[in-house]
Amino acid sequence: MSMNSFGHLFRVTTWGESHGPALGATVDGCPPGVTIDEAMIQHWLDKRKPGQNKFTTQRREPDQVKILSGVFEGQTTGTPVQLMIENTDQRSKDYGDIIDKFRPGHADITYWQKYGIRDYRGGGRSSARETASRVAAGGLAREAIKQIAPNVQITGFMTQIGPHKIDRGNFDWSQIEQNPFWTPDAQAARDWAAYLDDLRKSGNSVGAVVEVVARGVPAGIGAPVYAKLDTDLAAAMMSINAVKGVEIGEGMAAAELTGEANADEIFMGQNGPQYSSNHSGGILGGISTGQDLVVRFAVKPTSSILTTRKTITKSGEETEIITKGRHDPCVGIRAVPVGEAMMACVILDHLLLHRGQIGENRGRIG
Amino acid sequence: MSMNSFGHLFRVTTWGESHGPALGATVDGCPPGVTIDEAMIQHWLDKRKPGQNKFTTQRREPDQVKILSGVFEGQTTGTPVQLMIENTDQRSKDYGDIIDKFRPGHADITYWQKYGIRDYRGGGRSSARETASRVAAGGLAREAIKQIAPNVQITGFMTQIGPHKIDRGNFDWSQIEQNPFWTPDAQAARDWAAYLDDLRKSGNSVGAVVEVVARGVPAGIGAPVYAKLDTDLAAAMMSINAVKGVEIGEGMAAAELTGEANADEIFMGQNGPQYSSNHSGGILGGISTGQDLVVRFAVKPTSSILTTRKTITKSGEETEIITKGRHDPCVGIRAVPVGEAMMACVILDHLLLHRGQIGENRGRIG
Amino acid sequence: MSMNSFGHLFRVTTWGESHGPALGATVDGCPPGVTIDEAMIQHWLDKRKPGQNKFTTQRREPDQVKILSGVFEGQTTGTPVQLMIENTDQRSKDYGDIIDKFRPGHADITYWQKYGIRDYRGGGRSSARETASRVAAGGLAREAIKQIAPNVQITGFMTQIGPHKIDRGNFDWSQIEQNPFWTPDAQAARDWAAYLDDLRKSGNSVGAVVEVVARGVPAGIGAPVYAKLDTDLAAAMMSINAVKGVEIGEGMAAAELTGEANADEIFMGQNGPQYSSNHSGGILGGISTGQDLVVRFAVKPTSSILTTRKTITKSGEETEIITKGRHDPCVGIRAVPVGEAMMACVILDHLLLHRGQIGENRGRIG
Amino acid sequence: MSMNSFGHLFRVTTWGESHGPALGATVDGCPPGVTIDEAMIQHWLDKRKPGQNKFTTQRREPDQVKILSGVFEGQTTGTPVQLMIENTDQRSKDYGDIIDKFRPGHADITYWQKYGIRDYRGGGRSSARETASRVAAGGLAREAIKQIAPNVQITGFMTQIGPHKIDRGNFDWSQIEQNPFWTPDAQAARDWAAYLDDLRKSGNSVGAVVEVVARGVPAGIGAPVYAKLDTDLAAAMMSINAVKGVEIGEGMAAAELTGEANADEIFMGQNGPQYSSNHSGGILGGISTGQDLVVRFAVKPTSSILTTRKTITKSGEETEIITKGRHDPCVGIRAVPVGEAMMACVILDHLLLHRGQIGENRGRIG
Repeated sequence: MSMNSFGHLFRVTTWGESHGPALGATVDGCPPGVTIDEAMIQHWLDKRKPGQNKFTTQRREPDQVKILSGVFEGQTTGTPVQLMIENTDQRSKDYGDIIDKFRPGHADITYWQKYGIRDYRGGGRSSARETASRVAAGGLAREAIKQIAPNVQITGFMTQIGPHKIDRGNFDWSQIEQNPFWTPDAQAARDWAAYLDDLRKSGNSVGAVVEVVARGVPAGIGAPVYAKLDTDLAAAMMSINAVKGVEIGEGMAAAELTGEANADEIFMGQNGPQYSSNHSGGILGGISTGQDLVVRFAVKPTSSILTTRKTITKSGEETEIITKGRHDPCVGIRAVPVGEAMMACVILDHLLLHRGQIGENRGRIG
Repeated sequence: MSMNSFGHLFRVTTWGESHGPALGATVDGCPPGVTIDEAMIQHWLDKRKPGQNKFTTQRREPDQVKILSGVFEGQTTGTPVQLMIENTDQRSKDYGDIIDKFRPGHADITYWQKYGIRDYRGGGRSSARETASRVAAGGLAREAIKQIAPNVQITGFMTQIGPHKIDRGNFDWSQIEQNPFWTPDAQAARDWAAYLDDLRKSGNSVGAVVEVVARGVPAGIGAPVYAKLDTDLAAAMMSINAVKGVEIGEGMAAAELTGEANADEIFMGQNGPQYSSNHSGGILGGISTGQDLVVRFAVKPTSSILTTRKTITKSGEETEIITKGRHDPCVGIRAVPVGEAMMACVILDHLLLHRGQIGENRGRIG
Repeated sequence: MSMNSFGHLFRVTTWGESHGPALGATVDGCPPGVTIDEAMIQHWLDKRKPGQNKFTTQRREPDQVKILSGVFEGQTTGTPVQLMIENTDQRSKDYGDIIDKFRPGHADITYWQKYGIRDYRGGGRSSARETASRVAAGGLAREAIKQIAPNVQITGFMTQIGPHKIDRGNFDWSQIEQNPFWTPDAQAARDWAAYLDDLRKSGNSVGAVVEVVARGVPAGIGAPVYAKLDTDLAAAMMSINAVKGVEIGEGMAAAELTGEANADEIFMGQNGPQYSSNHSGGILGGISTGQDLVVRFAVKPTSSILTTRKTITKSGEETEIITKGRHDPCVGIRAVPVGEAMMACVILDHLLLHRGQIGENRGRIG
Repeated sequence: MSMNSFGHLFRVTTWGESHGPALGATVDGCPPGVTIDEAMIQHWLDKRKPGQNKFTTQRREPDQVKILSGVFEGQTTGTPVQLMIENTDQRSKDYGDIIDKFRPGHADITYWQKYGIRDYRGGGRSSARETASRVAAGGLAREAIKQIAPNVQITGFMTQIGPHKIDRGNFDWSQIEQNPFWTPDAQAARDWAAYLDDLRKSGNSVGAVVEVVARGVPAGIGAPVYAKLDTDLAAAMMSINAVKGVEIGEGMAAAELTGEANADEIFMGQNGPQYSSNHSGGILGGISTGQDLVVRFAVKPTSSILTTRKTITKSGEETEIITKGRHDPCVGIRAVPVGEAMMACVILDHLLLHRGQIGENRGRIG
């Protein structure tokens, strides 16, 4: 119910703004006995950390996580885990225009209209910094998943920057860790580097598409209607700031398919059912099939750009604004570990929900 | 929390399968004093009802709604409204193959694996019949919205069938009610009729894209993170069966835009802020801008087709199946009123949430 | 979140008023594979049914339950179970005074103030009839519990009517089914009969205390803080209409004990820990100990009595009212099966929650 | 849904154990524009702080609250407010017996059985320290209430220690702040001091009853069934550790009343309805009447006492234990500000829920 929480049983509440003393995630419902420490979570935060190459913002945010509760002698206790990240790069500066002018494409104007108060120093809760809390919670979720479904492997990667898509023929899992875009297409990585460099120099930004795949998810998690696995994945990804579209399996392209083309035929493998294809993205009727879970989402371009744009002030006067600062030319890059974290949270949550209602899978095949 | 509920304050729980005695929606949290009767809800159910033209299934489902509670002397009382639709077309028939074989692209196999029991007579909860409950709840939501935000107008329409998209240059609101596809493009309606007729005769099916627009939504509803208006809309649409992708505003195409192109510039109109464009789909930072709310979703093709497909049985033997029956060649058509209903539920829910936390909008402009 | 739901994973939403077409319970989250039919639920409704002896209201409410969904071939499918009870005794009558005057001690005045609309024909949602829905849901919960914790036995009984308490020295489980008060003290049953007969003839009513005991509940269900087993039991019982106090174990009397007297000492039995006493009511730190779960609640006297009382009208004029009709002299009697039902729902819910978060108990003793 | 959260719209999640780095409350759903700072919250924490007189534990817990998010320039922003209290008195000591032996009356044994891991250094989540988080959240709730219902006044006080009850004839609101027991009966305060001093010296402990009264609560908040104001108050109070009974208005004593005695007669006052008495505790049908809200709860005696008690070890051997340390002879004293905090949270939550569903009260009288 709460407005800053996500999940049914594994329930993550994030808190904090980009310019307050700290931000973090309050994680309720984690199983006990999960081996975890700060370094294991830090690993994922470091992946998301800005300033690692010239394609992400040059702000320095060490993003050092502290575990404040719920862990004792290296294991979760089953009580809430508080993951806190202190904000360190809060240098006092001149906010100038931003106090009174609304940046087009930002949440500034809607925050003001709704709440009548706004921390103008950053994007508030809509800052990309909020996603650090998610990555921390996702790091914990990954370890908890191992306890229940040890074969799950979650991997995110970019499939498109601006108009440039990867060539699926070049897909190579091993490439993903080899380039700053986490893309499985080495040729695309080279092309994108040149493209994004030009864009960055011109002070512009661009959108992207991120795909997250979970391999090894057991068949049977999810539910048929409002707690469909697709529903919760769509909500999880759409809740990331700047995301404007979410696809499962074929996604929007499913509209173009015929029933004949779309139906994944079923065969009997050694370890259970196997499928001729995966148009469904690993979900039928809201429930996992055991195939790869495949989710994609589009991230819009950062609206903080060096081009002058028309806007208004709080008092309703028309004016112009230009947003200087240390921004990401393609915020989609750093969305990769965020998407992975959300995938981890959803999978763990549904593993727990499934175990709660059902126990073990009840229907055997073969 | 529950697996068959949707919404925070206006909370809809649907129940029932396609082949049991009845199905319906338990609606909790409706404001009191809303004028409603069965005919007002029936209006929307009739829009969704199958068998109205040759492009939808020829099953006869009168879908007559009964209000069992929560309404007294023509007004809601503020207590739960039970909307029940009895199943009348349950003719006893030979289910033959379906009992033991899993239809490819259906929920059959995952239901079986998860629950170990499955009402094979229809799609169970994954049947398109479940959406009748949503349409009924949406009909109530529409009336309740009038009490709080009387200018809201919710309209759904098709923008694509198979590979055939509408021409936005032909967009004419007044055409939507004039053709069996609820499309604003009269030329597309003619073309689609021919295309779909061929498809139907060949026993095949095809996907579609539906767009739902809400005009007159006040600025300020929504929330910045997990209860983002985009998140709840994405979840609402993705929870409809057969939906595989959801877009807000530019949607997946946002990936192709630069920051310069994407940012909707702001001007001062007579009644508050106005925008040069609506790439955002009426939502910034999870909160409504006052522009049109624009949501699109892709519906996959029905997997019940007259083509033989390979599959397996419960005992794990490989076999083939062909699904005869009275199915929709394009189930996306009937998804139009369903999408409208979900939009109505989300908007009402967020109007109530907003009034709960904030009361009136707090920030004035001008 | 919703205002008419109860439970985390086994989630019951009741709906309906005493004088509408029907009322019932929408039960979400029930495990699949639970053997159930209408007769099994009817058994418990019959226990609660009015008019069985002269100590309960003489209204005739057949309270016949229908299962509308979620059950297939005699087993739950894991989808929502809709339990409907049609209202049959809705004879048209002269409501006279009740339309405009507020009955003291009734919800009439607060309903009116809050909602501005009120079904004056009965108590609306505050009618004791609402509890039939709970009993139906509880009947289902009892069967589902058998799947997970087959030794659980839930028994409610009266321990006090007006000032007359049972003598714990006379406690005999086998007596409970032998008298119209479901009391384990045969002598009390005789004394109460005479007392209540006098009270009934004078048109007065009286309060009562009901105790519900669950034997065979495994150690380990519950949670330390807001989902404490005590918290959920207290909420469950207090949500029953007319209940004004709830106690776990020693209850209010715990205030009078010293730490020395209160601490239940622990010994090692053949099947795990045993305790010297059960002051705790079977719960320590919100989690079950494996001892009997013991809950008590006080039911206030029906305010519908034959004595003239002072009140006001909707227009604010002072006046008097006398409530004629077929009311219970001690509504607490019929609260016994209701308390049992709520106990069953809470236990099942926590069994599922526990299985979800933990799986099997993790800590072994001995 | 989550196990460590409380409230519907004003939603408090507490986290942290007595011996970790910190504990606190994540508060979601607070209205924006509430004037708040750390000192305003500290005021209430200081009231709860131990070591203020010889009747409470001599542990030193400065309990200094820090606001980490959700407040900007002295006002709430409408986003989550993180209230953190660092643990400072974590001196390393010899935990000796406690690691392996279960203290009777403590959560030790059930934690172990459920989770298989337990922070033996304190009571974990069941420590009275958890209530500091509630008091902090309650301090914020009090300020937010002022924005919506400025006449609300919440006051807690003790009415019983061990067998010694106050004399209601001595009730004097002004006395409450004048004695270490926050009791309105000056004579009782004197008697209790002597009684408790003896008890403390003997290393024993005792239970207590706390009453919390809210004056000035507007009529109309609450709901008829599961979100009854009584239900949520009962849950709120029962969720406090060591509480074993909760009463609204007459509470358990309602069992002894006749309908004639119990019904509060209604008159017309200058500002609306008035009542001859308040047996109902300010709630009819789950909804506030506008009279004083009256809640009472019993706190059991601390089980940490200097008497040797029989128990077992983790390996199942029978043994004895004596709990040394700095404990409260009557933990009920410090429960007074905790009960007030929970009352504040429930009232604010229901004010928001009411505003969400209804807006303004709809029914006028007179």
